[in-house]
Amino acid sequence: MSSWIERDEAVVWHGFTQMATYADNAPVIVERGAGRELVDVDGRRYLDAISSLWVTTLGHRVPELDRTLTDQAARIAHSTMLGNGNRVTVELAEALAQIVPVDEPHFLFASDGAAAVEQALKISFQYWVNIGEAGRTSYLAFGDAYHGDTVGSLSVGAGGFGTDLFDALRFPVLRAPGFDDPACLTTATKMIFEHAHQLAAVVVEPLVQGAAGMKIAPAQDFGMLADACEETGVLLICDEVATGFGRTGTLFASEQCGISADLMAIGKGLTGGYLPMAATAANRRVYNAFLGEDLGPKTLYHGHSYSGNALASAVALKHIELLSSWNVLDNVNERSAQLGALLDESIAPLDAVVDVRLQGLMCGVELEPGNRIGRRVCAAAVERGVLLRPLGDVVVIMPPLTVTEDEIERIVHTLRAAIDEVAPT
Amino acid sequence: MSSWIERDEAVVWHGFTQMATYADNAPVIVERGAGRELVDVDGRRYLDAISSLWVTTLGHRVPELDRTLTDQAARIAHSTMLGNGNRVTVELAEALAQIVPVDEPHFLFASDGAAAVEQALKISFQYWVNIGEAGRTSYLAFGDAYHGDTVGSLSVGAGGFGTDLFDALRFPVLRAPGFDDPACLTTATKMIFEHAHQLAAVVVEPLVQGAAGMKIAPAQDFGMLADACEETGVLLICDEVATGFGRTGTLFASEQCGISADLMAIGKGLTGGYLPMAATAANRRVYNAFLGEDLGPKTLYHGHSYSGNALASAVALKHIELLSSWNVLDNVNERSAQLGALLDESIAPLDAVVDVRLQGLMCGVELEPGNRIGRRVCAAAVERGVLLRPLGDVVVIMPPLTVTEDEIERIVHTLRAAIDEVAPT
Repeated sequence: MSSWIERDEAVVWHGFTQMATYADNAPVIVERGAGRELVDVDGRRYLDAISSLWVTTLGHRVPELDRTLTDQAARIAHSTMLGNGNRVTVELAEALAQIVPVDEPHFLFASDGAAAVEQALKISFQYWVNIGEAGRTSYLAFGDAYHGDTVGSLSVGAGGFGTDLFDALRFPVLRAPGFDDPACLTTATKMIFEHAHQLAAVVVEPLVQGAAGMKIAPAQDFGMLADACEETGVLLICDEVATGFGRTGTLFASEQCGISADLMAIGKGLTGGYLPMAATAANRRVYNAFLGEDLGPKTLYHGHSYSGNALASAVALKHIELLSSWNVLDNVNERSAQLGALLDESIAPLDAVVDVRLQGLMCGVELEPGNRIGRRVCAAAVERGVLLRPLGDVVVIMPPLTVTEDEIERIVHTLRAAIDEVAPT
Repeated sequence: MSSWIERDEAVVWHGFTQMATYADNAPVIVERGAGRELVDVDGRRYLDAISSLWVTTLGHRVPELDRTLTDQAARIAHSTMLGNGNRVTVELAEALAQIVPVDEPHFLFASDGAAAVEQALKISFQYWVNIGEAGRTSYLAFGDAYHGDTVGSLSVGAGGFGTDLFDALRFPVLRAPGFDDPACLTTATKMIFEHAHQLAAVVVEPLVQGAAGMKIAPAQDFGMLADACEETGVLLICDEVATGFGRTGTLFASEQCGISADLMAIGKGLTGGYLPMAATAANRRVYNAFLGEDLGPKTLYHGHSYSGNALASAVALKHIELLSSWNVLDNVNERSAQLGALLDESIAPLDAVVDVRLQGLMCGVELEPGNRIGRRVCAAAVERGVLLRPLGDVVVIMPPLTVTEDEIERIVHTLRAAIDEVAPT
């Protein structure tokens, strides 16, 4: 056992990780990055095929982002957004307003993605109070949904992920079927019409339920959901924390769904995977309902200390420029087609593989359940220099959006070797 | 109206801010920092007497922290903590373990302080499930408490701050009196003994209730609270997000109270005010209850994407070194004594002043209520080049911990002039 692993387990509690077996599972202790690779404390290199848990877009140590960080530090690292502003945060919000598919958006910043979801939930709840319509106190959410781990986001998330034990802390919501059910959006639409008078909002991961194991609903079905919201006034919250910033082949998955949220949560890829930053975008209709007298009751009394952090804002702003100037979306779509073809050829036919799901560079390879197979397959891939991490029996493939043709081949070949080792046919 | 203010209000939603009157309230749009001053887009300078909302400890643009940031960017900005580690995060956790008054701590990182509180709440809840003791599903919290804005932290927070409207989303808690009540800790102690069988944890801001308006409870009364927790097994959660990292005159307020939490939430000053980072420290007793079989039910299924962010970790690590090598606590205590004497002399005697509360460099000057006086006094101070922001009728004075003798004088003289202008006697 490496001394760094011992030191790590002596003081760090890792999320979603059983610490009693942490060291035995051969964790990678990262020292530095190099492009799309991670280098551990012993100099071993790993292709980061999970984008450091779905956040890295352009790769590690992007010279342009590093320079931006240093330049911003020479101005200021942080100043408060409470009642005051920061120039670079304004510039970031302006750039976001150009690309986020929300009507005339205003951006309320936070740092954890879960907090951005919480903000959307609270804003939609207060919206009805502010416009004087009583009884709109509940939410419609989907089966298998994941929206984060704080109590509010956990409440709209489905059970599972080991969270049922927190039921006593969660507020109840109406639950539509998960994306496994081909009729999920039809059912959800019916539920909106039936329960509109009690619904503050619908919350959904557009197109792909990420943490559920990359479950994909038909893009064209989201229109009826959005139409039902519009007709009944129920607010539509799109959680694009995982799907945003090019991951699904468009900048935001909402675009492929042809919908425009009233409130959208973004995070993860917002800073290119560099720094914690999340935001809630509110459209004009929602925002206007909060305008009122100074210090009055229509105000949103919510705010995180590091909201609009200047360092994160600067990096996020530069990241938006690079996504465009590097034509990153073109690469996502080309590499997605390549990945799909390779998976069809060498992974999908395997006995151990139940399903392959792919949208842009969000991919889940579902294995036959049992015997910790997801964990074991990923461990075998890590041994071969490709960092993977499963969601239960689903192996997630989520490389940086700048991944190359060779790297896609390397990922698939490694996965094939890992499955062959763990579950030989 | 500055064009930057117009651009800001067109796209940014500021927390705890009525946006209809945002521009009219002459917000400072920061362009850069210089020591303990902020410089706005028009080149005007303001002494940052609120530490950019209670986060800045050493000042802005600290060369050592800036260099650390650049150096870490040359290694890596971020890699995931889920099942894997990062060297600098290990080093930070080791350094924190040396100073955080929690027994053999493990650190679970998040980015928003509210998320650190949520983690403590969920960990304490699951603790009882893991050790097989049923019925420990509630919390004891204090009147006037503030623990953050996500639904879980809002639930343990008291009403007020415009949050009552969210009652339908909050889980109920037992509520002890606020620190206004001299018997609050005696009452809370009794409540622990009465309700121990249903309590997962007690959550408290040790020594100072910050957002309540810097309300201070006697340090020596916290011992009986901690003793009651120990005797009944109820877990003690200390929320040191605001009080931690030297703000109250010791590194952590718990030290002055003579208590050691089972779970402690830290944030704000953790990175010196540079970057979003928060953490939950769990003591050995709590941590051990989560050890079990791999992928088993004792695992904490909770984790934020940017947990243990490498850039924030590096800055936080260097910050701990500087707090010590610069003898920052000595300055806090000297400047606190100076501030107290000056306030006694020239602020406390004023008709408009109801109370002056000071602990370290956490200070609240409570004004006679009414007519938006807190807001107007702070605006008058901002006009004079000292950035202040009130909590209702309480003017908060919270300068960086490296504040100089001259700057303390400047703050008090400016506050005096501002009060004289707004509420002449």
